[in-house]
Amino acid sequence: MSNELLISDKKMARQNGIVQPLLTDLYQITMAYAYWKSGKVNDVAVFDLFFRANPFQGEFTIFAGLEECLKFLENFNYSDSDIEYLRQALPGNIEPEFFAYLKDLTCKDVKVSAIEEGSVVFPRVPLLRVEGPLIIAQLLETTLLTLVNFASLMATNAARYRMVAGKSVSLLEFGLRRAQGPDGGLSASKYAYIGGFDGTSNVLAGKMFNIPVRGTHAHSFVTSFSTLEDINSVILRHAETQKPCNLLELASEWRNRVSAIIDISPEEASDGELAALISYALAFPSGFLALVDTYDVKRYNFQGLPSQHRLRNMNGHTGYNSNCGTNGTRTQITSNNHSTYGYSTVERTLRSGLLNFCAVALALNDCGYRAVGIRIDSGDLAYLSVLARDTFEQVGKAFNLPWFLKLTIVASNDINEETILSLNEQGHKIDCFGIGTHLVTCQRQPALGCVYKLVEINGQPRIKLSQDVGKVTIPGHKEAYRLFGADGHALIDLLQRSSEPAPVVGQKVLCRHPFQESKRAYVIPSKVEHLCKVYWKDGHVTTPPKPLSEVRERVQSSLKTLRQDIKRNLNPTPYKVAVSDDLYNFIHDLWLQNAPIGELS
Amino acid sequence: MSNELLISDKKMARQNGIVQPLLTDLYQITMAYAYWKSGKVNDVAVFDLFFRANPFQGEFTIFAGLEECLKFLENFNYSDSDIEYLRQALPGNIEPEFFAYLKDLTCKDVKVSAIEEGSVVFPRVPLLRVEGPLIIAQLLETTLLTLVNFASLMATNAARYRMVAGKSVSLLEFGLRRAQGPDGGLSASKYAYIGGFDGTSNVLAGKMFNIPVRGTHAHSFVTSFSTLEDINSVILRHAETQKPCNLLELASEWRNRVSAIIDISPEEASDGELAALISYALAFPSGFLALVDTYDVKRYNFQGLPSQHRLRNMNGHTGYNSNCGTNGTRTQITSNNHSTYGYSTVERTLRSGLLNFCAVALALNDCGYRAVGIRIDSGDLAYLSVLARDTFEQVGKAFNLPWFLKLTIVASNDINEETILSLNEQGHKIDCFGIGTHLVTCQRQPALGCVYKLVEINGQPRIKLSQDVGKVTIPGHKEAYRLFGADGHALIDLLQRSSEPAPVVGQKVLCRHPFQESKRAYVIPSKVEHLCKVYWKDGHVTTPPKPLSEVRERVQSSLKTLRQDIKRNLNPTPYKVAVSDDLYNFIHDLWLQNAPIGELS
Repeated sequence: MSNELLISDKKMARQNGIVQPLLTDLYQITMAYAYWKSGKVNDVAVFDLFFRANPFQGEFTIFAGLEECLKFLENFNYSDSDIEYLRQALPGNIEPEFFAYLKDLTCKDVKVSAIEEGSVVFPRVPLLRVEGPLIIAQLLETTLLTLVNFASLMATNAARYRMVAGKSVSLLEFGLRRAQGPDGGLSASKYAYIGGFDGTSNVLAGKMFNIPVRGTHAHSFVTSFSTLEDINSVILRHAETQKPCNLLELASEWRNRVSAIIDISPEEASDGELAALISYALAFPSGFLALVDTYDVKRYNFQGLPSQHRLRNMNGHTGYNSNCGTNGTRTQITSNNHSTYGYSTVERTLRSGLLNFCAVALALNDCGYRAVGIRIDSGDLAYLSVLARDTFEQVGKAFNLPWFLKLTIVASNDINEETILSLNEQGHKIDCFGIGTHLVTCQRQPALGCVYKLVEINGQPRIKLSQDVGKVTIPGHKEAYRLFGADGHALIDLLQRSSEPAPVVGQKVLCRHPFQESKRAYVIPSKVEHLCKVYWKDGHVTTPPKPLSEVRERVQSSLKTLRQDIKRNLNPTPYKVAVSDDLYNFIHDLWLQNAPIGELS
Repeated sequence: MSNELLISDKKMARQNGIVQPLLTDLYQITMAYAYWKSGKVNDVAVFDLFFRANPFQGEFTIFAGLEECLKFLENFNYSDSDIEYLRQALPGNIEPEFFAYLKDLTCKDVKVSAIEEGSVVFPRVPLLRVEGPLIIAQLLETTLLTLVNFASLMATNAARYRMVAGKSVSLLEFGLRRAQGPDGGLSASKYAYIGGFDGTSNVLAGKMFNIPVRGTHAHSFVTSFSTLEDINSVILRHAETQKPCNLLELASEWRNRVSAIIDISPEEASDGELAALISYALAFPSGFLALVDTYDVKRYNFQGLPSQHRLRNMNGHTGYNSNCGTNGTRTQITSNNHSTYGYSTVERTLRSGLLNFCAVALALNDCGYRAVGIRIDSGDLAYLSVLARDTFEQVGKAFNLPWFLKLTIVASNDINEETILSLNEQGHKIDCFGIGTHLVTCQRQPALGCVYKLVEINGQPRIKLSQDVGKVTIPGHKEAYRLFGADGHALIDLLQRSSEPAPVVGQKVLCRHPFQESKRAYVIPSKVEHLCKVYWKDGHVTTPPKPLSEVRERVQSSLKTLRQDIKRNLNPTPYKVAVSDDLYNFIHDLWLQNAPIGELS
């Protein structure tokens, strides 16, 4: 079975089976034939893989996808059926020797240098440098771009979510159902984890990449129960004593006791929901995290008659009287001028779910288990999280259960960076965000524009000019260095010709804007990091890629070296990428050579 | 090798190996256990899969992904390693019998009805209805959503591109490198083809799905040649006589002759480019399609001195004096007030490439081959395509080669729906668009929001209420019909309870808005289409999915039944989806039953 193959334990396995040499653009293969026909089999090329602009209107990018690139290099080989397909797809006059040449082609003569996966990277700095025979180096283009573009985009997106959410909040990726293709979902799970998420709902991602998986139940679970009679068994054995406890009886008693404290009558809570939560608790007594908003709409109140809870809020008794309603359903509804019969669902929102949850959580407590918490999947998340936390505080204090105050509140409805920023302003009480669509499809900018450009052939530099200066490539074989200041922050990335000596700590380096003559700065680095390492040479991985967890740590440590103003959400400061004086002159000499002088006509 | 498995010829093979039961959210499995523990193994459920809003601010959606769903059902089976993984991932107290239950689980007891793949579909109408044991029906949710959401989004996006581009233009999908993951690219290629594209650059998509693949060469191919000495062999045998022809000599002669006609001197054309094009033509004499904008930036002219070509334009001699410069590089540059030394690249744009292309095309003609055409990948595509067409007309007329006027012009730079609409207005001369990023990532809206809702359990209808009426689900087991008018256009989609008799041709049907009481219409259908067919039952595919080419035709024939105002780009008219009177009453009775009466407090 193919799903077995994916997870076999051979060295560096677990790559999606569709990552293979034919996962490329046809023009790579037609070019390969034209090169082959032109006697360019022994030409040696250098390609740079880089991007020109950071995504999401930000000023940084996280580089990811390297491990997948290395697996691709390692497995690069046209199968017999690939060759057979190409024979059919290409014109009939292709010389048969070309197919024999392709059949034997591997990446053994290619050398690939790269920046460490998980590093913060910037426009124009090569993420990958591919050196070797022109034909094979060219044939790698599309697949390498595919593997780096989305991986880096996702890791960057996830890192941005982590930055706005802060360190104390858990972030879970819940996006599989809305992802772009099955592997779009799988890649999203992997790179969201690298970017700083704590787990995923995607089970296959858990299995393949050893990412923590999380999940409890959906609304359909709740609606599949109608009455308390739908509960099958009611007995749970006590966690320690093993004494049988009747969870239904306990929960029903607790529901009455709690209802008096949180001002909601048991009649207002759904019995079907209680049946569902009890059933779920019986299955997962030590992992009881319940979705509590299934029946939020069922409970309403006549407008104009503030409930006791609302009065408490208005008096500030609960400590929550801030502007929690700047967006979301609550404000929309209360601002409608429905007079007598308008729904004021808000006042009752979550109360069925919260009451039932507390009842089951307290019953579980009687059986020696501690509930985990709740999930809210609709409505005004700031307001509802505060309402839930208030409730937990009231209940916890009433029954002297301090841990009840710390129950986890998960929120998961259509969350994006802006939502989190807004929730932060409103003082939410959420411990964990479950984030789907906006995260996994990178809705704000669904593609990163990495390109793969020929910068040298047979030792001769190549420059691609463009009417748009931003699209002019920086020619030749180069090295990239990151120069750090005395406070540990990254100051600038410096590209040099590979023939130049590396910058030295404590010694002044002239850094120049690649295209603007007068923009120059002297930098005295306190630390110099050589950004590119050789990862692939002579047919082997020379620097083994790190485990996901270390790449994930690398993201955070690398981000830490950036000044806060470069990372901020609004109007971030651009980080500088410079060239050495030598490289500056090299670029501009070549530019003039390649841009002939016009004629008056 | 895993890539062999993907393309094996067993019945309905070729599914991406990662589509497997674990490609799901963990909560499906935790719910399954809770259901199992609750004795709900024999509960029977009905789930509807549908969306609530059309994507891209349009008023229609193309349903796609069904074939993949059927493959998934057919192969549904937890492997031993899946079970082993779940055992580790789930809490330790899960009863071992549950894993044995999972191990034996298949889709044999599930029945799946669906709308035909490639059909135009609308909000709230179930695309898939899944009936069967609650546990397995629930376990299918995430994977089915993943397979339908992106497939339908892509097919819809592609169909929209096809509509704005018109029927006479070729559309090629070029997006692999920017796609969301390798499979994001593969799915994009497949569903772009279904939606109306003519081919893809993605070779693996060509191999797996038998989609036409297209591609020629990149800028790097051109820049890898520096001088005419870089040409390896110059001999091409005549297509018919087999007589050896010296392609370099012929092309050089033609370059001189053509230069006189199109007013550009051979010195202005790049020899490296000519070498590249000759080499390419030697490799693909019958498929010569050349990228001609590599050296566009190299040729410039002093501003203020209109070239002869420009004067001709101004006098209207070339038949091209319209407002071709409403956007794009040309206007940007000529509107700069650079006086003497400013670049006026535009006047010379493409001239190196066009001259070299014509020279090689004419040389190939001497050898008995007809060139295919050119590709333009930058600049003002409307202007440049007209410039190229003018050139082909001049050359074709000068040398009496009528086919030269019909050479193909491919354009491929960052194209989206709006670009095509704008190019149309400007009277472009493009025969073929190559479209990448915007198409494959669905940049305008990167996710479709299909949901999967429980509508019946053990014969009891289920309604999910929401504060947002648009999110209220339509309960119960339903059938969907499309009613057509006498002119063949679809009038309305009608949902009925499955117990109701189907609408009959010529008989009046009352169609009601599902939620607005007073919105009603009588419809006398001239044709009634039953939208849902059974595709899966008793463990087998009961209606074999059609080949891709037929699904592709279905998209166009289905779109043809929609009135133009529903399909138009700007402010389209919404298509109506109604419920029968019976279903209306059913919904609202259930709603009142489930929404208890509030209390004055």
